[in-house]
Order: sequence, then structure tokens, then C-alpha cells
Amino acid sequence: MRNIRVLLEYDGSRYDGWQKQGNTERTIQGRMEAVLERMTGHPTEVHGAGRTDAGVHAKGQTANFKVPEHFSAEETGEYLNLYLPEDIRVTEAEEVPERFHSRLNACGKLYRYRIWTGKKRPVFERKYLCGLGHDLDEQAMRRAAEYLVGTRDFKSFCGNRKMKKSTVRTLFSIDVRRDGEEIALDFYGDGFLYHMVRILAGTLIEVGEGKRTPESMTDILEAKDRQAAGFTAPPEGLCLMQVDYGAAGEERKHQAAGKQRWQA
Amino acid sequence: MRNIRVLLEYDGSRYDGWQKQGNTERTIQGRMEAVLERMTGHPTEVHGAGRTDAGVHAKGQTANFKVPEHFSAEETGEYLNLYLPEDIRVTEAEEVPERFHSRLNACGKLYRYRIWTGKKRPVFERKYLCGLGHDLDEQAMRRAAEYLVGTRDFKSFCGNRKMKKSTVRTLFSIDVRRDGEEIALDFYGDGFLYHMVRILAGTLIEVGEGKRTPESMTDILEAKDRQAAGFTAPPEGLCLMQVDYGAAGEERKHQAAGKQRWQA
Repeated sequence: MRNIRVLLEYDGSRYDGWQKQGNTERTIQGRMEAVLERMTGHPTEVHGAGRTDAGVHAKGQTANFKVPEHFSAEETGEYLNLYLPEDIRVTEAEEVPERFHSRLNACGKLYRYRIWTGKKRPVFERKYLCGLGHDLDEQAMRRAAEYLVGTRDFKSFCGNRKMKKSTVRTLFSIDVRRDGEEIALDFYGDGFLYHMVRILAGTLIEVGEGKRTPESMTDILEAKDRQAAGFTAPPEGLCLMQVDYGAAGEERKHQAAGKQRWQA
Repeated sequence: MRNIRVLLEYDGSRYDGWQKQGNTERTIQGRMEAVLERMTGHPTEVHGAGRTDAGVHAKGQTANFKVPEHFSAEETGEYLNLYLPEDIRVTEAEEVPERFHSRLNACGKLYRYRIWTGKKRPVFERKYLCGLGHDLDEQAMRRAAEYLVGTRDFKSFCGNRKMKKSTVRTLFSIDVRRDGEEIALDFYGDGFLYHMVRILAGTLIEVGEGKRTPESMTDILEAKDRQAAGFTAPPEGLCLMQVDYGAAGEERKHQAAGKQRWQA
């Protein structure tokens, strides 16, 4: 069998997220697996690097799966694009070593959360922005972000209350950038808990609104209680931008470490 | 009464075009007029600079209408944005002299036609690109464009066969630009006939495919017959980018005249 890695972009608006559920028709993974089963004649399991929630988009999701030797990576990518709907697209397809696993081998993921602070969202970006409708103090958000980066127990930022595994993750950096009426938050980390990026975004929005202080981030982390953190920001503002493996991921981590105040 | 000029952007995907028809619900003009009637309590006529077809988009449509003195331009713009659907947005609103008319006073209009030559359209731009699926010879398209600019009878490029008024228009410039797998055609002129931009785009696509020579543009113009020109390119690739008035329009014309081979 050949192990194929694909880079994917999708508009998550009409999907129940990445992960296959009962109704496979409405998940990205389900759609991919249906097309691959059609191509190969066999059930095929697709592993995605990030399990994006319902309504969350991707520009750089990475996935891998096995196909029989007589299908090349190029053919497989073209077949997927032909039969996948227009809101899911393979942008790259290549053969990778047999042991490569897109989720287990990922060492860095970049998620972007986009907020529109103006009154009405720009028409052509409306589905990819969280429409807030008022301005935010981005300096306060930047100061708050400094308290959040590092290797920490993010239990307060985990949307799954029954989480039994470790809630410790490393957040390498959070960049807060303004472009006119848009504020974009870039979260780069080694992995994220259920709803973690959206709860971080919601909490930082509350800081930007003056409802929380930057310093209060320490208390939230220490509480290890979902109730202590802010709201879960809506899914449409979120996009999985990039997944890093091996050398690229390591380099990015070092850059991030040099740029941000670092706490282990 | 106050004369208000607004700049508009809209995603034309789900509309029957700009101009009000029997069913006003599905036209941009109809939607605008319904909101203004709600605001003022009176029927209000909205004049648009360009009568975009069904499915055509706008980033810089200009429109004007009269409202009672006690409504400011700012209030009017905010009211429109509040009650217009999320795929239509007012980006600017200002009071203009009583005699200003957005269509009659326009002296330059810029339409952009975007073609995707790759196999599958990028997900986040899929509704705003014509998906061609194969490459084009853009050098040939550029040479063909030189035969089309100038003040000419564009009867062969008019989709309305019963057109009784003059079919002479001035096309100041056509720019053919490539950005990776996208080819964008910018048409700047003083006015456009029914379907004219889409027939120009379709004809240039056929040149890019090698089905017509650049030199054959002369024969098409001389034929003064719709049958002589190429196909009507689909609406989703088209967007009204900008409408110029007065000094701005004059300056742009001079720039265009200097850049392109010019024939009066």
C-alpha cells in the first residue's frame, strides 16, 4: 500500500466538522473516505492532523491514508478533487513513508481566529470572520497573551469537562495583529484541547472589551476550571492555517520562543 | 430632500441582478428600496451606476437616492446596513449635490473578470471565479485586447439584439494579468452594453484557447453581428470594481490612453 499525504482547504460552513460521526455525509473526513472508497473499492480510513469543529475552516489541514500501489499520489489528488464538493479541495498530494501519521507526527499547528470589529462584516469575507460589532483594546489583548504562552495545564480552556487525559499543552506563541477593522489572533502550539482555541479567543476578546485584566490570565490558568475562562468564540472566525512536521516545526518553535516572553 | 450617494459591495450569487423586476425580493435595487421605504415611510427610487446581471458581484457599485432632510447620510448608511442582508453592504455614504445622478454622471467604470485556469477553484474564492479548468495563452489575449480598445461600435458584443440606441462605446483599456493559475481581465470604459463585458471576456478566452486569432477582432467589430463574437462568459467571474466621476475619471482615462495603443 502507498501512504499518501494531502494538504486540504475547506469552507467549514455547512459541515459538522472534520471527524466522522453517525451521519458521514456532513463531515470532511466522511466525505473524503466516501470518495476514496469509490476510487479503491475498499473502506479507507483518513487521518486528519486537526479535528476541526463544526463550522471551522481550513487552509492547511493535513491528512494521510493508504491506497493500493497502482494509484499514484497525483492521480489520487485529482480523483479526490473531481468527486469532492466545491467547498473541499486538495491543494497538494504526495507519497510519504509508510509510518507517517498526520496527527501523531504533527509538532506544530497554526490556527487563526479573525474578528471583525466594525458594524457589518465585509461581504466577501463574511463567512470567515467573527462579527463582533465593536472595537477592542488590542494592546491589552497582547499583554494577556503573554501570560498564556508556554507549557501549561490548559484545563480551564478545555471544552470537554470529562477529559481524562493530560490537559497540558505547549502554546509557542500568540500573535495579535490589526488590519483596519479586523483583528486576527494567531495561535501556534503543539496541540490543542477540545474548543481550546475558541475559548482562548473568547477570553482574549473579553480582555479587549475591558471585562478582564491581562493579569487575570494567571488566575484562570490556576483555577483549572472551564468556568473561570471566557466564552467560546463562534466557529466561523476560526481557520486551521498550517500543520508542521519535523524540521519546519522545530524552526518555527525556536522563532516563536525568541519572540515571546517564554515561561516553561 | 437630501441626495445621498452610497458605495456598495454585494455577492451577486443569489440575486437576479441589480435592476428591479417583478419580484423585487431578489434584486439588489429592490432590496435597497424596500429598506429605504421602511426608513422614510415613502417609496424611494434608487439609481445604480451599473445594472449588473444576475450572479454578477460588486465591490464598488455606486448608487444615489433622495431622503427627507432629517435623515443624515451617516444614519442612512447605518440603517441600510442594519436591514440589508449580509451579502449586501454599504461601505460609504455621503451627501451629494441635488443634481448628482450615479448613472448619468458616471464617466468611467471598471469591471474585472476573473478566470481560474487550474483544475479546481480555490475554496474561498470559488464563487467569484469562472472555473475554466485549462490554461490560456495570455500573450495572445493581450494582443487581441489591443484591437478592442478605443471608441467603437460594439454591436457584435451586445447581448440585446433589439437594441435601438447607439451601440458605440469607448473602451479606455483592457488589462490582462496573471497571478499563478488565475487570469484577471480589467475592462475600463465609459459605459457597457448589455452582456458586453461577458461577451468580451468570452471572446478573449477563445483567443487564449487558440480558437480565434488576435487579428480576427477587427472582423468581429466590423460584422456588427452578435454571432461573430465569442460566447457569453458566466456571471460568477464578473465584478463591478469601481465607478468614476469627474476629475478622478478624467485622470484615469489619460493614464489608460498613455498605456494602451489608442484608436479613436
